[in-house]
Amino acid sequence: MANKTAPDSPPGSAGGTPTRRRSERSRRAILDASLALVGEVGYDKLTIEGIASRAGVGKQTIYRWWPSKAAVLLDAFTADVDEYSAQGLPDTGDLAADLKLVLRATADEFNDPAFQAPYRALAVAGANDAELSRAFVDRLLEPGIRVYVDRLRAAQEAGEVAADVDTRVAAEMLLSPFSQRWLMRTGELTYDYVDTLVDLVLRGLRPGS
Amino acid sequence: MANKTAPDSPPGSAGGTPTRRRSERSRRAILDASLALVGEVGYDKLTIEGIASRAGVGKQTIYRWWPSKAAVLLDAFTADVDEYSAQGLPDTGDLAADLKLVLRATADEFNDPAFQAPYRALAVAGANDAELSRAFVDRLLEPGIRVYVDRLRAAQEAGEVAADVDTRVAAEMLLSPFSQRWLMRTGELTYDYVDTLVDLVLRGLRPGS
Repeated sequence: MANKTAPDSPPGSAGGTPTRRRSERSRRAILDASLALVGEVGYDKLTIEGIASRAGVGKQTIYRWWPSKAAVLLDAFTADVDEYSAQGLPDTGDLAADLKLVLRATADEFNDPAFQAPYRALAVAGANDAELSRAFVDRLLEPGIRVYVDRLRAAQEAGEVAADVDTRVAAEMLLSPFSQRWLMRTGELTYDYVDTLVDLVLRGLRPGS
Repeated sequence: MANKTAPDSPPGSAGGTPTRRRSERSRRAILDASLALVGEVGYDKLTIEGIASRAGVGKQTIYRWWPSKAAVLLDAFTADVDEYSAQGLPDTGDLAADLKLVLRATADEFNDPAFQAPYRALAVAGANDAELSRAFVDRLLEPGIRVYVDRLRAAQEAGEVAADVDTRVAAEMLLSPFSQRWLMRTGELTYDYVDTLVDLVLRGLRPGS
């Protein structure tokens, strides 16, 4: 009741008023709590109550902004992706160096247990829930692929990649092997692997290759 | 009791005696029934009773050969893979043509609802069950990748693929994008897509590329 003037959708950025800043702090605490908890207990045992308690907010604060635990979790995962998408990949003019830099950092992230646990929990939940899986693809996977497609297109315009290359297919040649290795645990995500993959993919993209 | 002389492990191939041939028929019926049923009801609701009833055999016949429904299902999936692995990929001396032929046939299979349903059920079950997932990788995914690695190695020996290419990484560049498209439903598995993927991967594998 006291919060009648609070926004009905989660505040997307820290605003100017004290209320707005408090809202942003609560939002961030809720998202962080949902990631930490889902990694600990799994998606099935994740509850709004548990998230609220961990975040130090009331249940009603969460329900005011999100309809379900799936919605909280998706926002938690996409908070970083949105930032990343807006920024795009680095473009130093050296495609191989840029891709290796970003994919090595991604390997570090995927190899970090704190990152792994919630991500694997989301993968399991998505396998069981077609709607969640669709939201995962639309809001996480596709935007993630798109930044690579954009970087490859820029390289194409710069003449570093042949004009006839399908940049979407090329981006998947880079990203799908990487994510399948992680998901299926069929290989280590080392810097050496990342470099080998980038070099082998790019060999086929060069003009005249 | 009447079957005391029957084998304790599932007969792997049709033998010479009538008993052996009957066993092989029962085994095939059980495997087919398990695939059909898991596609219809999902992994969680799949039962040994249901498989027995659909296959027209007694429950005890299944339990004599397999300890669990997961074991039945893995044998059902690997029956084809074992055959496929023993055979290897075609080798006409034209790597691109051979890969397109096999991957187009695989696309037909993945696009077939009768194939899709049990495979997706297994993917869901694997996401929830680390042991099943490990068995899936060891008995289905890895042997599937290996036949491609072997074909790429043969092409390397024939001079069609550069000597410095990591054939495992190359095989994953071909197979992971294909299977991720199917699993995540991020794109159609058309002949056109298959051909584009094969051509783009092979561009980077050629000697001097």
